[in-house]
Formats: sequence, structure tokens, C-alpha cells
Amino acid sequence: MLSIDELKKHFAKEREKILGDYFAFLRFKSISADPACAGEVRGCAEWLAERFRKMGLLVEKWEGGAPVLLATTPFDPKKKTLLIYHHYDVQPVDPLHLWDSPPFEPTLREGTIFARGASDNKGQCTYTLFAIQTLLEKYPDFPVNLKLLIEGEEECGSSSLSTLLQKKKQKLQADHILIVDAHIEKKNRPAISLGARGIVTMTMTLKGSKFDLHSGNCGGIVYNPLRALSEMVAKTHDTTGRVTIPHFYDQVTPLSSEEKKLYNFSFDHEDFIKNFEARATGGEEGYSPLEAAWIRPTLEINGMRGGYSGPGFKTVIPAQAEAKISARLVPDQDPDTIARNIKSYFESEAPPGIHCEIVVHSGKGKGFRTSAQSTLAQSFSRSYSEVFGSPCEQILLGGSIPISAALQEVAGGDILLIGVALPEDQIHSPNEHFSLDRLELGFLTVTRGIELLAEEV
Amino acid sequence: MLSIDELKKHFAKEREKILGDYFAFLRFKSISADPACAGEVRGCAEWLAERFRKMGLLVEKWEGGAPVLLATTPFDPKKKTLLIYHHYDVQPVDPLHLWDSPPFEPTLREGTIFARGASDNKGQCTYTLFAIQTLLEKYPDFPVNLKLLIEGEEECGSSSLSTLLQKKKQKLQADHILIVDAHIEKKNRPAISLGARGIVTMTMTLKGSKFDLHSGNCGGIVYNPLRALSEMVAKTHDTTGRVTIPHFYDQVTPLSSEEKKLYNFSFDHEDFIKNFEARATGGEEGYSPLEAAWIRPTLEINGMRGGYSGPGFKTVIPAQAEAKISARLVPDQDPDTIARNIKSYFESEAPPGIHCEIVVHSGKGKGFRTSAQSTLAQSFSRSYSEVFGSPCEQILLGGSIPISAALQEVAGGDILLIGVALPEDQIHSPNEHFSLDRLELGFLTVTRGIELLAEEV
Repeated sequence: MLSIDELKKHFAKEREKILGDYFAFLRFKSISADPACAGEVRGCAEWLAERFRKMGLLVEKWEGGAPVLLATTPFDPKKKTLLIYHHYDVQPVDPLHLWDSPPFEPTLREGTIFARGASDNKGQCTYTLFAIQTLLEKYPDFPVNLKLLIEGEEECGSSSLSTLLQKKKQKLQADHILIVDAHIEKKNRPAISLGARGIVTMTMTLKGSKFDLHSGNCGGIVYNPLRALSEMVAKTHDTTGRVTIPHFYDQVTPLSSEEKKLYNFSFDHEDFIKNFEARATGGEEGYSPLEAAWIRPTLEINGMRGGYSGPGFKTVIPAQAEAKISARLVPDQDPDTIARNIKSYFESEAPPGIHCEIVVHSGKGKGFRTSAQSTLAQSFSRSYSEVFGSPCEQILLGGSIPISAALQEVAGGDILLIGVALPEDQIHSPNEHFSLDRLELGFLTVTRGIELLAEEV
Repeated sequence: MLSIDELKKHFAKEREKILGDYFAFLRFKSISADPACAGEVRGCAEWLAERFRKMGLLVEKWEGGAPVLLATTPFDPKKKTLLIYHHYDVQPVDPLHLWDSPPFEPTLREGTIFARGASDNKGQCTYTLFAIQTLLEKYPDFPVNLKLLIEGEEECGSSSLSTLLQKKKQKLQADHILIVDAHIEKKNRPAISLGARGIVTMTMTLKGSKFDLHSGNCGGIVYNPLRALSEMVAKTHDTTGRVTIPHFYDQVTPLSSEEKKLYNFSFDHEDFIKNFEARATGGEEGYSPLEAAWIRPTLEINGMRGGYSGPGFKTVIPAQAEAKISARLVPDQDPDTIARNIKSYFESEAPPGIHCEIVVHSGKGKGFRTSAQSTLAQSFSRSYSEVFGSPCEQILLGGSIPISAALQEVAGGDILLIGVALPEDQIHSPNEHFSLDRLELGFLTVTRGIELLAEEV
């Protein structure tokens, strides 16, 4: 096994090359949600395929909305197989004016890279690829079959990969599934993630009139769609922060106090305030902040618009109002059932004169939790401890990797989420960033984790 | 007095010139709410000043945010004075993509002009100016002093004119004040408007965090500003449509059944549905649609925004949410008091973790009602009846001309609102329009109305 020092030296030697690849990767405007970026998404996939080939991997490109790549070492049926999942797409960048440097021109400031995707997931993918490249160079006959699965629609629900899963079942078979898209709560608290929440998203449009109306002539006559929207949304939570949509919690299995002990729910409010200038006031009564974010489902409004929002004022009653709605789900909650319940709820709550239309987006996925006792979890727990020099914790993700539960069902094997992102990386927000020292930490953790796994199998 | 037929012939003869002036007027992007249009606003004022001079009027330009013009016939202290008010500014044009032709390229389709301001107020101003020009040509020594007051900030609250009122009190003195910015309910129902509602507007910003947060990581931890906004707005109306803000109705004097008889409140629901594809479901219980819009104050949300509203989805909890809020007021309600009450209400309703900031805009004005028995009202009532060939009704405006109550206080005299706009002109909305036949109707009504007034004084 390579020593941590040897790995550090190797990283230092290759640093410029790693950064060159990282920057090139970040320059692709691979926003999967925006049809205007389809060309950049494909370009990014091409660039990755070429990179995999240079690493000596066999590359398959599966066509879909955005290409899915599978890069593998030559398959040896006598070896166990590790499948590593990433995504190369990123979130939209608006509000653009809040970025201090352009989102697709990676900028280095005081040891930190600022760019869309710097952390989620191009940063985490960059160190993983370098880890694999290193292992393949150092061990000509690596004792584990490696499969790198990378898709371009994670940020909008993995619909292409979802439809490919059954068809490609054979190719996806694995004994271990590693998803490198997670964070640790703090830089000095190494942690493996033993689960993630599921997700379902939808767009609701409330229509009240053919065109915007004059708020003087019609104020007192029509039902303002923004009033309707506010009333409908306001009723979704009671005063204890519990979601009131019928059957929302029906499939939620509460954790026993024994099960709760598996995870480190400790939450540093001071730190949270410092990082986000936000307070933990929005959760469900009876649950600590991280309990509410990890083991309870939530309903959020991710966007709203209607009427005039420019400078000055415009006295209209808008023709329509729109809301983006999402729910984060815990295991056993079926995304389709929850989507149906939310849709029925809103449709039944629309007041007279307001037409309600809801489109459920294709991007949805189940939540899942996995065992801390698997070979995969144990290997990476040891790797984190060794690299960080402190005991590895067990946490959960409040976020979602929509495809993960379905991928595990098809590919088989254990699943684990790892990563060295931090909550303050501003992923999905303006000024997303990732510190270069974590590029090294991630590289060390992945390299050593796979080495330890290889020893066990 | 000129016969209606003579006036029609005169209009027909000058038609091309009238349209030329109308189109030139419409081409100015005189959006007062948008600082980027300040140059166009000034250009429009210059163009008008030149036009007044060509009509033989004396022109004063009062500087302010947007110039205010006063164009007068030479003052004769023995004559009574009629002051006519207009505005040359227009509302913003977004959503731009809903316009069938560019808003500042007036387009004639089947006898109707489409452009921002086609109706409000450049269309109504165009026929008034031609009426005055005609009267000045036909009557070299017109028996009434005419004062044309035209401002460029009506759509954002008349703040320049407001501050000028006291200073220019002497110049504004009048026996009659005619505001040509009103509509009639239907083309075959001539009506004078005996009052308008007041208005106060504000922008509210709710802030929850420094930047947009990840809805997975933070969903269940922070209070989503869009949830806060919805809850705060939802509580502003009870289930009967009554505004719940404390003291909102304190200054509202109910109309006696005798007073109600003055106005024609009849409302054609079928017609409303046809014109607007909207239903009259939003009013206050116990009041008919036009009662609610004319004699009751209302609170409306004119715009909302927060989070992501583009294509696809973005799983954020927005850092902030914003709402544009306005109240329409009836006489005796003081805009400043109402603004303070609304502000206090929202500030007190913001949940923990949400910072609420409210900016009250300068554009505000009182509501007013005036007598049907004044010489001015009687003259125009007779004119409408004669031109339209049916009895003139008395109505109120749900809309506001913010300066009107204050203008009357300073200038003295009777006040009356007239016009030939229609509710379906889509003023303030995309595809605002005005039919050419109403340009003639308006011209006839104003010309004859002033002639009748001149006979009385």
C-alpha cells in the first residue's frame, strides 16, 4: 500500500496538471436544466470520454438527453467490482449579478477556486479521477474491477440514466457502489454518509385572467393569483413546522433511539450563523436541525414569480403566478405517491376563479439509508480516519442523489456516499467554491479507501 | 356652438395629422418608473412643449424628476379658468414577450392602435389636445381661460408635481379641474366619473440568509423566505375577502343607500369573462363587484419574486423574497397612516430568522368623490349624452390619479374625471390598445363639453 506521504508527494508533483484538468472541466457550461446549454453538456461529455481513454479505460457513451459515460478497466470475472458514480452537469447560475467572478471562468482567490461546479460535482470528480489514475499507474493489475459511471442530468433528476438502468443492468453490476457527491459537516470532522433523502419537484401555475389586469379597475373584483398562491402555500405548514398535506408522513418510519445513535446530529448554530447569516428557525418542532434535515421529509418552495418585480412599481394584478415546489423524502416514501398527494392538495385548494396547473418534473428519486458495517463503509471509514487523523463520523445527507436508490436496486451491492465538500461551499448558489487543500484531501481519501477495499476483497 | 356633424367633418379632414401626432407621441419610451428611460421621458416633454407652442399656448416647463408642463391661453382675470390634467408617462412594458407588436412601435390592426400608452394616457391626451386646438381655432377669443397641466410621473406617483403644488399654487388656480384619464364601462354607456380611489405602494423584502441555500442541506433547518412571505400575505385577507390589517377600515365612511343611488354599479359578468377570461370571485363579501372596486379599499400584491423561476428546476432556498404591495383607498383614508399600518403589520408578522424591510414609495394619493351637480359635471354629462346619443351615467373609478385630490385642494374649483377608455383596453398590460373610433368620440365629447361649460360661465 502507498504511504500517505508518498501520495502527497505524487499530488504535489502533478498539481499543475490536476488544476489544468479541473479548470478545463469547469469551463463547460454544463447546465442540464437549461436547453440552451445542451451543446456545452455534450462537449463536456466528449472531453471526459477523451480523458478516460487517456487513463487507459474502456469508454461507452450511452445516448440520452445528456450522454451517460461508463468507463471501465478490462473486466475480470474473478475480481470484485467497484462502481463509482459522478455527474458532470451543474446547477443554473442565476442570480448572475451576485457572482464576484464569472461562473464559468474558474478563478483562484486565496487558495480557493470559484466557479459553478467547483465543488458540486466537478471538484469532487476531479480528485476521484486523479485517484483512479494514480491507482492504475501504481498497480498494473489492480485487484478490483473499476467502473466509472458519470451522467449529465443529476441536477435535473437523472431522467436519461433512469430510463437506461434496466437496459444496461448487466453492465452496471457491481459489488460496491461509491457515490462521491457528499459533504462533511466540518473540515476537521471526517465522515461517511450512510444515506440521502429522495426528491420530487414540480412547477405550479395559477391563472386568474387572460392578461395582467389594472389593480385599480379590478382590485376588489378578481381573485389575485398571488393572493391565491400565498394562501395555498401558507397552508402547507402548520405552526409547528409540520407539513399539512394529507398522507405526507404516511410512509415515514420513525428512527428508534438506537438507530439515531448511529449518526452524529451535532449542530453548531454559531458556525451556521457565521457561514450563512441564517438561523435554524424553520424546522419541525421536536426535531433538532440535523434531524429535521436528515430523517424527516420537508416541503420547500424553491421559486415564485408573478406580476411586476422591476424598479419602481407597476399596479397590476398579474394574470398568473408560478411556484417551483419540491419535497425531500425519507426512505419508504414513494416519490410518485407524494407527487400525486401534493398535486391533489394544491388543486383542491385553488380558490374559485383560479385555474391551477401542476407539472411534476421527471427528476425524482427515493431516499435511502445503508449499513455502516459493509466492507465499503468500513474501508472508507478507515481511510478518512487515517487521512484526517481523527475518528470518522457517520452522517446522513439532507440532499439527494436522485438516481442512487434505483442504481443500487439495479447494480446490486453495498452503497456509500463520500466526499469532502463543505456546507459552506455555496453549491447551487452564486460564488460556489472549493478549496485546493480539499482537492488533496479528497484524492488521499479516495485513493486510500480503494486500496483498503482492495485488500478486503 | 359647432354642430356635431361639423366637428366630425373637421376630425375626418385632419385625421392623418392627428394620427401622425398620436404615433409620434407613442414612440417615446416615457416609462417613468424606469430610470433608464429618463432621457425618453425628457424628450417626450420637449416634444409636447413644442406642440403646445405651435397651438399658440404659452408654455412653462417646471423641472423635477420628470418635467411638468403648464400650457395656457393668455390669462384674462375676467374669465373663468378650466384646468385640464394629463400625464405623458406610461407603465413599464414587461412581460415583453406577450406583446404581439413592439410596445413603442404603434401598430394599427383593424382600426385599433396597439402600443404602450395607446389608451393610458397618450390616446386620451391626443384627442383632448386636438379638441383644444379646434376650439382655439374656431373661437379666437375663447370665453374661458385654459390651463393644460401635463406631468410625467403619474404612473409612479406624481412625486415631482406633488412637491411643486404649493410653490405653483398661484399658477394652478382654476374654477374647474378636468382630468381626462378615466374610462367608461362600455362603449355604449357614456359616463362621467365622480371620484377615484387613492393609492399607496411599497416594496417588501424578506431576507433569510446571506446567499441562496441548498434545499437539501438546509430544508428543515432555515425558515424559507418564500414560506414566510406566503404566510404573511395569506393572513392579510380573511375568508370573507376583508383585509385583516389593524385599523385598515378605520377611516372608511360607508355610503348611505341614498348615496349609492348616484352611481351605476351594474356589472356584466358575462362581458367581464369574455374580455378578461377572469371571474369576479375576489371581492369582499357583502359588496357587488363594482361596489368593492369603487367604494371599498383593497390590498393587492402586484408582484412577487424569490428563488429560481427559469426552465427546469433549481433546488434552492432563496436568500430573499420580495413583494410589491399596494392599497387602493377611499376618501378619508390617509395614505401615510395606511402605509404605516401595513408596514407595522408585516414587520410584526415576520417569523423568527426572517428580516423584513419595507420601503414605502413616494407615489401616493388620497381618494376623492365629487358632486354630480357642479357646472363642470353637468356640462360634460350633457356633452356625453349628445355625442353618444344616450343618457350619461355616473360612475366612480377603482383606479387612482394620485395627484387629483391634492391638486384640487391647491387649485380650488370643481373636479371631474372623464374619458373614453374601456376596461378592456389592457392598460398597464401587454398589447394595450385604443380604437380609432374612440379618438373621434373623445374629441367630440371634450370639444362639446368645453363649449357647454363656456356657455354656462
